[in-house]
Amino acid sequence: MLKTSITHVDKDGIVVRGRKLAEELVGKISFSDFFFLHARGRIPTEAESALFGALLVNSMDHGINLPVTTARLTYGAAPEAVQGAIAAGILGVGRIGDGAIEIAAKTLYEISAKADAGSTDAKAAEAFVTEKVAAGEPVAGLGHPLHKNRDPRVDRLFELAAQHGFSCRYIGIIQLISERFSAMKSKSIPVNGAGAVAALYCELGFPPQFAKAATIVALSAGIAGHLMEELREPMAREMRKLIADNVKFTG
Amino acid sequence: MLKTSITHVDKDGIVVRGRKLAEELVGKISFSDFFFLHARGRIPTEAESALFGALLVNSMDHGINLPVTTARLTYGAAPEAVQGAIAAGILGVGRIGDGAIEIAAKTLYEISAKADAGSTDAKAAEAFVTEKVAAGEPVAGLGHPLHKNRDPRVDRLFELAAQHGFSCRYIGIIQLISERFSAMKSKSIPVNGAGAVAALYCELGFPPQFAKAATIVALSAGIAGHLMEELREPMAREMRKLIADNVKFTG
Amino acid sequence: MLKTSITHVDKDGIVVRGRKLAEELVGKISFSDFFFLHARGRIPTEAESALFGALLVNSMDHGINLPVTTARLTYGAAPEAVQGAIAAGILGVGRIGDGAIEIAAKTLYEISAKADAGSTDAKAAEAFVTEKVAAGEPVAGLGHPLHKNRDPRVDRLFELAAQHGFSCRYIGIIQLISERFSAMKSKSIPVNGAGAVAALYCELGFPPQFAKAATIVALSAGIAGHLMEELREPMAREMRKLIADNVKFTG
Amino acid sequence: MLKTSITHVDKDGIVVRGRKLAEELVGKISFSDFFFLHARGRIPTEAESALFGALLVNSMDHGINLPVTTARLTYGAAPEAVQGAIAAGILGVGRIGDGAIEIAAKTLYEISAKADAGSTDAKAAEAFVTEKVAAGEPVAGLGHPLHKNRDPRVDRLFELAAQHGFSCRYIGIIQLISERFSAMKSKSIPVNGAGAVAALYCELGFPPQFAKAATIVALSAGIAGHLMEELREPMAREMRKLIADNVKFTG
Repeated sequence: MLKTSITHVDKDGIVVRGRKLAEELVGKISFSDFFFLHARGRIPTEAESALFGALLVNSMDHGINLPVTTARLTYGAAPEAVQGAIAAGILGVGRIGDGAIEIAAKTLYEISAKADAGSTDAKAAEAFVTEKVAAGEPVAGLGHPLHKNRDPRVDRLFELAAQHGFSCRYIGIIQLISERFSAMKSKSIPVNGAGAVAALYCELGFPPQFAKAATIVALSAGIAGHLMEELREPMAREMRKLIADNVKFTG
Repeated sequence: MLKTSITHVDKDGIVVRGRKLAEELVGKISFSDFFFLHARGRIPTEAESALFGALLVNSMDHGINLPVTTARLTYGAAPEAVQGAIAAGILGVGRIGDGAIEIAAKTLYEISAKADAGSTDAKAAEAFVTEKVAAGEPVAGLGHPLHKNRDPRVDRLFELAAQHGFSCRYIGIIQLISERFSAMKSKSIPVNGAGAVAALYCELGFPPQFAKAATIVALSAGIAGHLMEELREPMAREMRKLIADNVKFTG
Repeated sequence: MLKTSITHVDKDGIVVRGRKLAEELVGKISFSDFFFLHARGRIPTEAESALFGALLVNSMDHGINLPVTTARLTYGAAPEAVQGAIAAGILGVGRIGDGAIEIAAKTLYEISAKADAGSTDAKAAEAFVTEKVAAGEPVAGLGHPLHKNRDPRVDRLFELAAQHGFSCRYIGIIQLISERFSAMKSKSIPVNGAGAVAALYCELGFPPQFAKAATIVALSAGIAGHLMEELREPMAREMRKLIADNVKFTG
Repeated sequence: MLKTSITHVDKDGIVVRGRKLAEELVGKISFSDFFFLHARGRIPTEAESALFGALLVNSMDHGINLPVTTARLTYGAAPEAVQGAIAAGILGVGRIGDGAIEIAAKTLYEISAKADAGSTDAKAAEAFVTEKVAAGEPVAGLGHPLHKNRDPRVDRLFELAAQHGFSCRYIGIIQLISERFSAMKSKSIPVNGAGAVAALYCELGFPPQFAKAATIVALSAGIAGHLMEELREPMAREMRKLIADNVKFTG
């Protein structure tokens, strides 16, 4: 048998996590609280609700970035299948960019686990950074191609976690990593948006894969909004022309 | 130039619909209100906020249905790319099932436009049904493979629209369609979940394509929740075995 | 039971359309002949083999077009999942562009069916064009945004069909449509690449959906080749910069 | 500028790798040779042509496996977008299953590079296996959930490489890995289909990512063939019922 503990469906209706969808959820719970309930099996506390909602808002729209570009291009060619345009956009959330959230969250859990096994967060973070620098590898969740200083969203997210009484342990660890990495590289390498989001999903106790998945959900809403603009004021054709005009054959 | 009126990004941060993301939105607006603001360019009224939020909650999870099945199967084979599993799930929202929302919403707008051009909703709905029956075509948003009676979610959504003071014109039209279609087919063909959702997105003034897109966003949250269960208690392998064991070669 | 007549798999190996994959197919049949066999259940004739192979070659690569653009962009962000980049590229084969193949092939079969039911190809084509013009609708498979004159590939494909002894009935019908449409619009609206490909898949007896699907298969090979270039000489980052530099906020 | 050395497109037509598409390629080159030319920039030798074609034939169809299942399910729900069904199928080619080809090819190149840097293939392979066993990690390209003995396709592919005069160095390395791994685990862990395919793409000199990408191209043809059967004799609805009937709620 295929076992699930999330949803029970029968002729009387749909029951999600023990609550009747039509009678107890629709019109009575916010989307983000329902999303938390669905994933975790319980209603979030007030603090969890605030932080999870803030994370989803934070990740929804970052302008005409890669997922929005590919979604708008795809919609322009396949207006019969809005599902395809959203899917194409989502496929751009890979290891680079927002996909770094999954990697960064995994790192934060590993460092905290090592600290719990007989070290300290500071020592475990230092060991991690030393190893990365020795291997010549980048650290997920740090640095930004454009900004040398901290992204204002990072401070805002960290402030929210503190206000709502979270332990802020994972925030502390990612800041330790940033400090050690900056020191070893002799330049400022601040926590970036993906790193901050990763730390907050760890504060909320979500697995790294869900941190990325929830970010994708938020981002799909941003894509849907951009597609609504694309309907009325399309840019897909001009995007294609822009690219075509700038391709140089060098064979 | 590629013109957008949604997001402005520069080195000081991200401004969405005239509001600073970090300072004015994160932690200060609910996800569904931000989604409405992003798509429409204005904060929803209290009634719009309630109805839009209810629609998103309504569409999030309907159990181990087609999108969840393909997402869980895909994740089992490609755990390195949760974006691919969510995308695969979304690709199943086609013309059949929830994709009918786009078609039904388009129909409701067309009927209301014909009525406005010198007829009545009742006459325009009747003309539409007569044409469909003559062509032997089904009507999107009506009927259900299992339920002969009305889905409880349909009544709940219609009730919410009335409570919040919506005109309920599109609800009226889809009910007229259901009545006429049932009469002409001599059997009960009630408004289904997709039809009810379509009518409510029309009440909110969204284009049909967005009705489908927003449903996909809600559904992607349900997929993310199921993938979190798949992480801990996978069913993908057993799903594959179930299918393999039931394939019969008839060549 | 789930019934298939294509493949039989057991512990002794895989048998496709009655032939043992390892022993009778690998190294003994060309890819395009095997693709034909797989889809149709029989080995193609020499003429079918030539025409089907030519169609696949024709559709593989048309430069840095939409599918290649979205695939390269997606691969740049998600190098861990080449499957996602190819999928994103494929999702751009919609109703516009190469997706028109499916619609055009459907039209050609419908016109020939009407002719067979008591008319002639010329009359059925004329009736179709008259209806389209009255409805103000475009005709799939005709016209090109850039070329006013015929695409050289169109002539090449038609010539091949004639050389290999095909009836050329569907080629005749699409040419009739082009002539009638051009006459009614008082300008030259030649058969385009999608229209020619559609006509040839009809000559081969494939359903319209397969005409589009096979074109996607060919195109996925072109995407794979471009991704191999993207590996060594990436353009994804510069594409993103080009788009970002050309976005103008007009809110 | 965006630089490419593959395709040149202008008003006179499309030129791929220096050859005019309509005049010099369509009807004059096989699909698999054109695919090789596109990716590599030169026509394959006779031996390369034979091996590359055999690899594509080998990967096209393995029955109602995961990609075919998700594609058929998706097509059943979204028949308006065959591109979405093929994309959904492709998304299941992840790290597990055929996606192991990329990992295995990378391993083979790394081992041969280490050998070239002052060791032997045997020693480098042994060092690799020892490290994997110490880390408790599996080895991509070895073992099969069902077969304890060698897959007949593996022998067939190796035989072809030898017949066509390839060095068979990478075949040797993956066999060394299998032998060492089997010895250290005290059970037979043969080279599997993915491992054999990986070794042959290395013989041909393709990068690991292309080995996976080309496999996806071949597989997309198999998906297209299955979708053609799905059109006439659909199994999607019954697949959904099979899954729904076997879900047990355990909340």
